[in-house]
Amino acid sequence: MERGKFVSFEGTDGTGKSTQIAAFVDLLKTEGVAVELVREPGSTKIGERVREMLLSPEHSEMAPVTELLLYEAARAQLVKERILPALEKGTWVVSDRYADSTWAYQHAGRGLERVQVEAANELGTDNMWPDATVVLALDPDEAFKRAHKDHAPDRLEQAGLAFQKRVYAGYLELQKIDPARVVVIDAVGAKEEVTERIWRALATRLALPHKGHAKKGA
Amino acid sequence: MERGKFVSFEGTDGTGKSTQIAAFVDLLKTEGVAVELVREPGSTKIGERVREMLLSPEHSEMAPVTELLLYEAARAQLVKERILPALEKGTWVVSDRYADSTWAYQHAGRGLERVQVEAANELGTDNMWPDATVVLALDPDEAFKRAHKDHAPDRLEQAGLAFQKRVYAGYLELQKIDPARVVVIDAVGAKEEVTERIWRALATRLALPHKGHAKKGA
Repeated sequence: MERGKFVSFEGTDGTGKSTQIAAFVDLLKTEGVAVELVREPGSTKIGERVREMLLSPEHSEMAPVTELLLYEAARAQLVKERILPALEKGTWVVSDRYADSTWAYQHAGRGLERVQVEAANELGTDNMWPDATVVLALDPDEAFKRAHKDHAPDRLEQAGLAFQKRVYAGYLELQKIDPARVVVIDAVGAKEEVTERIWRALATRLALPHKGHAKKGA
Repeated sequence: MERGKFVSFEGTDGTGKSTQIAAFVDLLKTEGVAVELVREPGSTKIGERVREMLLSPEHSEMAPVTELLLYEAARAQLVKERILPALEKGTWVVSDRYADSTWAYQHAGRGLERVQVEAANELGTDNMWPDATVVLALDPDEAFKRAHKDHAPDRLEQAGLAFQKRVYAGYLELQKIDPARVVVIDAVGAKEEVTERIWRALATRLALPHKGHAKKGA
């Protein structure tokens, strides 16, 4: 039994990540590939409880390292309970966010030290890394302009925008650190165009049939 | 303002840990020391939610690394929210369990790798270690015999006993690794005798008044 492949999708908010993941999973299914879709944090009973804790507005006192460790706890459970068993039976796994989000948000965004985030990711992933990671890239200034056509950013929005810019820069840096795994895809354009860019970029890395979405357009 | 001191108590089940902690805290208060008592996992709102997750029988599928990371998440929050602020204002902190429990239970007991547990403890404690750690030592065979005078251990009890023995050995090993911090105290004897042993053992390390409980008995 050939082992399944593991693909993660990353990106800042508003890059169309969910839409592109759904389209990619549909294309894989069209090609007859058995595939499971998971999201972070969550996709296990324990992970969903951790997700509630992370998202609850009651927990505004949460320390950045606590947040980091909760993400890793959810991830460790996801790897053991869903990802590894699926891959071992030949099923592919597509994940909406994975350890690169921790790098981009907790390290580049919130400023936790690189060594801390790397040590935490090593524990949470148990050194299980995707075969390929798609980073959907949309310049944060551009994304902001689209979402708020009518005004310049106010103070809080400026802070949010500065954070998104750090996260974005973190993702681009990752591509330099691990170019064999991380593919940056331009998220500007029609939904179908972006889907086709993703398929083409992954085709060689994952030995995908060189048709997929492209075939339909032919 | 002189910084407060931080003391943790450790030990396997049935060593009288809670009783001895209460007695030690009372003695400190008698000496006019401001002291806060915390327990692990817990003692913060976030930590208590993590504690519920760890103890819930619903979560039997929890992976050992998930468990490790959840303990560390609760610990990180405890350090940031309770321990550091107390020490900084000159208050002492006594903790019922701390990072050594993770070493003894997750590494020595459950067999997680030493490097994993050490990396996790570094994240969870942010390198904040107690000024002194009391390990209450009671030979697990002895503890078992006391609790079950009427019978030899059955299969499940044997497994439990074997686990307690590994944890116990883990605690003794810690004392060799960090003798300046870790004090092993014989937990056999009357409650008051054990309390006095603890006070005497900590007196020099923590610059305690050399009276405490001993004074009362004089």
